[in-house]
Amino acid sequence: MATSRLISKIKRSDLLEKEQQRSDLGFGTRITNDTTRLINPNGTFNARRENVSFWAWLDIFHRLTVLSWPRFFLVVFAIYFVVNCFFSVLYLFIGVEYLQGIHATTKMEQFWGAFFFSAQTLTTVGYGHVAPVGMVASALSSVESLVGVLGFAIASGLVYGRFSRPIPKILFSRNSLFAPYLDINAWMFRMINESPTELVDVRVEVSITRLETLPDGKRTRKYYPIKLERSQVNFFPLSWTIVHPITEDSPLYGATEESLEESDSEFLIYIRATEETFLQPVHARHSFRYKEIIWGAKFIPMFNSVRTEDIVRVDVQKVHEYEMMPLN
Amino acid sequence: MATSRLISKIKRSDLLEKEQQRSDLGFGTRITNDTTRLINPNGTFNARRENVSFWAWLDIFHRLTVLSWPRFFLVVFAIYFVVNCFFSVLYLFIGVEYLQGIHATTKMEQFWGAFFFSAQTLTTVGYGHVAPVGMVASALSSVESLVGVLGFAIASGLVYGRFSRPIPKILFSRNSLFAPYLDINAWMFRMINESPTELVDVRVEVSITRLETLPDGKRTRKYYPIKLERSQVNFFPLSWTIVHPITEDSPLYGATEESLEESDSEFLIYIRATEETFLQPVHARHSFRYKEIIWGAKFIPMFNSVRTEDIVRVDVQKVHEYEMMPLN
Amino acid sequence: MATSRLISKIKRSDLLEKEQQRSDLGFGTRITNDTTRLINPNGTFNARRENVSFWAWLDIFHRLTVLSWPRFFLVVFAIYFVVNCFFSVLYLFIGVEYLQGIHATTKMEQFWGAFFFSAQTLTTVGYGHVAPVGMVASALSSVESLVGVLGFAIASGLVYGRFSRPIPKILFSRNSLFAPYLDINAWMFRMINESPTELVDVRVEVSITRLETLPDGKRTRKYYPIKLERSQVNFFPLSWTIVHPITEDSPLYGATEESLEESDSEFLIYIRATEETFLQPVHARHSFRYKEIIWGAKFIPMFNSVRTEDIVRVDVQKVHEYEMMPLN
Amino acid sequence: MATSRLISKIKRSDLLEKEQQRSDLGFGTRITNDTTRLINPNGTFNARRENVSFWAWLDIFHRLTVLSWPRFFLVVFAIYFVVNCFFSVLYLFIGVEYLQGIHATTKMEQFWGAFFFSAQTLTTVGYGHVAPVGMVASALSSVESLVGVLGFAIASGLVYGRFSRPIPKILFSRNSLFAPYLDINAWMFRMINESPTELVDVRVEVSITRLETLPDGKRTRKYYPIKLERSQVNFFPLSWTIVHPITEDSPLYGATEESLEESDSEFLIYIRATEETFLQPVHARHSFRYKEIIWGAKFIPMFNSVRTEDIVRVDVQKVHEYEMMPLN
Repeated sequence: MATSRLISKIKRSDLLEKEQQRSDLGFGTRITNDTTRLINPNGTFNARRENVSFWAWLDIFHRLTVLSWPRFFLVVFAIYFVVNCFFSVLYLFIGVEYLQGIHATTKMEQFWGAFFFSAQTLTTVGYGHVAPVGMVASALSSVESLVGVLGFAIASGLVYGRFSRPIPKILFSRNSLFAPYLDINAWMFRMINESPTELVDVRVEVSITRLETLPDGKRTRKYYPIKLERSQVNFFPLSWTIVHPITEDSPLYGATEESLEESDSEFLIYIRATEETFLQPVHARHSFRYKEIIWGAKFIPMFNSVRTEDIVRVDVQKVHEYEMMPLN
Repeated sequence: MATSRLISKIKRSDLLEKEQQRSDLGFGTRITNDTTRLINPNGTFNARRENVSFWAWLDIFHRLTVLSWPRFFLVVFAIYFVVNCFFSVLYLFIGVEYLQGIHATTKMEQFWGAFFFSAQTLTTVGYGHVAPVGMVASALSSVESLVGVLGFAIASGLVYGRFSRPIPKILFSRNSLFAPYLDINAWMFRMINESPTELVDVRVEVSITRLETLPDGKRTRKYYPIKLERSQVNFFPLSWTIVHPITEDSPLYGATEESLEESDSEFLIYIRATEETFLQPVHARHSFRYKEIIWGAKFIPMFNSVRTEDIVRVDVQKVHEYEMMPLN
Repeated sequence: MATSRLISKIKRSDLLEKEQQRSDLGFGTRITNDTTRLINPNGTFNARRENVSFWAWLDIFHRLTVLSWPRFFLVVFAIYFVVNCFFSVLYLFIGVEYLQGIHATTKMEQFWGAFFFSAQTLTTVGYGHVAPVGMVASALSSVESLVGVLGFAIASGLVYGRFSRPIPKILFSRNSLFAPYLDINAWMFRMINESPTELVDVRVEVSITRLETLPDGKRTRKYYPIKLERSQVNFFPLSWTIVHPITEDSPLYGATEESLEESDSEFLIYIRATEETFLQPVHARHSFRYKEIIWGAKFIPMFNSVRTEDIVRVDVQKVHEYEMMPLN
Repeated sequence: MATSRLISKIKRSDLLEKEQQRSDLGFGTRITNDTTRLINPNGTFNARRENVSFWAWLDIFHRLTVLSWPRFFLVVFAIYFVVNCFFSVLYLFIGVEYLQGIHATTKMEQFWGAFFFSAQTLTTVGYGHVAPVGMVASALSSVESLVGVLGFAIASGLVYGRFSRPIPKILFSRNSLFAPYLDINAWMFRMINESPTELVDVRVEVSITRLETLPDGKRTRKYYPIKLERSQVNFFPLSWTIVHPITEDSPLYGATEESLEESDSEFLIYIRATEETFLQPVHARHSFRYKEIIWGAKFIPMFNSVRTEDIVRVDVQKVHEYEMMPLN
């Protein structure tokens, strides 16, 4: 009795153990349609959350932060225009005669007169050739100038947030390679920091995900973290070739071009580093699908250290360059 | 002699050991009134610190940061109004004749004239149809414009602080379940990230707290961290079901609906992650009391990966959905 | 030969080992004047670096950040005044007739006219009842308005920096106690978070430093980290009593009131936590000298959990309260 | 068969092991021109990435953040001037008669009139003695004031970014020394924090890099992390002498002045700490080449703790001072 109990206990903890080793990175095992890529080339996840509650979906700060600059300025300009329209309609409603200095006859002229007065109030320029008279117009313009000041406080915050956001500009080689490596082969890719901001303490994790057929014939998605020759560098001033030597304990041992395609293999890359201007953490993701692998090739060196010079030079655009070389 | 010393030494370090294992999370063991919840559903602690010194209590920045947006704008507007009143009283005191351009006869008209001049000065609109003349009024208005500029500097800071504050929008399943799990049972709950900002490196810790009766009949509060099938994921693009398998070494081994109620059981959940827009850490807390547990049920899958599509889709609102299923 | 080499190798690495254990926290062993406190009650170091280079000493941002609020506003006001004086002298130099709208006869009136115009330009109020005419005055005022805008950009940054600076408001018990603890004694102190911002993941390190007499009669300062019953809590909503049980391996074993005084003992406390509004790290330091120890006392509970209520209440000001109790 | 497999497996993992130990810090082994320094005295890398894509190269925020203050203000002033010129040309194009209040006859006068009106609009001073009339001029000035407000939002962000950037001001001793240490020798250097901001949790890593001749006669660059007597301090209120004892397992064992020069030796120093004003991480790099080593010297104490005083004083400028002392 006691023995069986003990065994069951061991079994349970085995179970726990095994589950903990299931390094699926958070995608789960049920994504088995083999046309799906898990991580897009730009590093975003190839997944969509639907039916999100309105406020969570809105998240203005996040959206205005990740917008491209031209779109951001367009949005700001549009809001500026709309707010001015809103206030000028209110001024018209009060009566344009309470904005002294506007000499307008048609409705249109009155609107634009009020519109430009509103713009001058919102941005706090306040030339004063048009100015509010009477309680109501004065009160409205004093509210509008507060709105303006707060609005541009928000704009300042957004602009700072956009500027200071830690986005690494890492350039990845277009392809990953299966290359000869010592007396075996290795899978490798190359990357370089394109930004003038240095990256330090760079760590790389690579997982391979593929579909496997279970004994019962069902296909399931499996994940394997793979060992790298080197998974961390202190400094990253030059290029770095990340190498996974295909030893016998590698999940890629014996893999062929066909087997990778058949199993819908994808290499998931996760990079963490610290950027040096503000010492903020930065992350980058990338993935190579089986289609982006070159079999039997090696990267061409990117840097040439001329003896007569006192500085090491690297040509960033060479990161993609490789030459064919038979595998071992 | 030496032996007894050694024994005493061992006893002491045992003592230390034991105390270190007492994972009470910081609540202590004396909270034994069984109507008290330790963590509120919104993640705050169900505790109040009283008799705090005035300045510590005030902590304006914190208070204005955690206020809801409508209240925040109300506070800003109120301060704007009060400061304008204050300055307009000062201008009246100096004499409204030193504000050229105000044509007021009654006291009330004078006050509002001064008030709107003050508003124009504070927001630095400065139309100029009203302008200060003479030493004193000019000096006061130059001080007021400085106050305005600094005030809106503070407002800018607050607005940025509010915007950039890292608040995860994690949606928890309304109930946690006791569900069949392999050939045993498990306690589980489910969660999904509702925000468009991705969360990475998500770690979960779960503790169970309950009242226990000591040999001497006194009731004391105990805390047990519980083991999870998986306590960490790298990425969190989809939902995540957190599972505690009820093996023999689980504090829930043999628990029943009645025993959980009798012992006032509460599951305390603590989540740490990194949000990806600014790579800031985010925390979330949640708790399930015994009342929020469903016995014999399992969650219904939330995502459907249609073969003809190239993206994985998840319906966020399904996070709460479960179906009944007999326990093992 | 080889043996002696090996021995020497062992000796060396012993040496290294020992040095690494010398947990002097960075103060060094030569501070032996026994009237010196290492950490002041407000947490600063009782040390001064002299002869620092001018720019390192200046470090305006740091200085204006740590200034008290009244002083900060005084400095801003003083700078505002001086800059206005500077520009008004320049305007006078150009000729006050180029500022249309100033009707001044005496030099003093001219100065103040220029001064208030300068203030209106610097804060960008720009009423316009005084305005620059001619090339030089216009150019100067356009430069001044740029200076104003940049200046208040700096002020905004400073104000935000001051507000968002992570300062924990931890209230320490006035005294630390030697109290009975189980069947031995313990040294303990108590603390509570006074701020409305919660602290999480609070870790405490305590070292004791004291003067010891070397075999050669020279006195040297030694540092010992001491073991705590509990050195970390996840949450800190209530008070926390930090306890060091005086077991036989404690550096306090056998210590008396006299021995602590004779050896100029000081308990150095270092606290790290995360504040929850912005999830920033916060640090606090504190120290108890031998004079601030009560022998034979224990703390009085601070919180009363009334059965009829659904919230736990703590009286912050009770943190200092203790009652006498004979030691074991 | 199985045995050879096992052996090959071991060989492979050896291989991996060895590669992982190759602590080249990210510089690679091919930089073998011995006139090259890897880390410049100011901490930057002596490497250049060329042919970077335009937008990565530009990275305005980073560039304007690391610029010196005089250059930063020059750039801001230049942008201000150019933007004003741009808008004043537009106003001239619309017709200067639409800016009421400008009494200009020559083209030049018109340009400057428009220029100063533009400056008043951009900084939102808006005196109003010049003001736009008509649709087009009013529209342009309302756009310009928006540009102004956003531009100064950007300036505010930049100024705050520059101010809050964590740059440690660590003063390193001009030379590193080979000094007698106990009964052996040690390599050491000294440093002190010059800034009024305290540094805590300071960690130091030192590597030595040198050219070595491979068995095949080719020269390659090797990197060795070296062990320090102490590599971490909690607090850094005073100076800190970092010591590497030259035991038999040190890569410097048996090194001479000539051998260091011949092998182009460079000591690479990497410091991580936390600054205490904002509790931000700070990094510093430094390097000592063989030319900056003094053989047979020791540092002179920097601090004098006068018995009659209650504070410890350190003279920062003494950090470089040493006296000759024969090596063991």
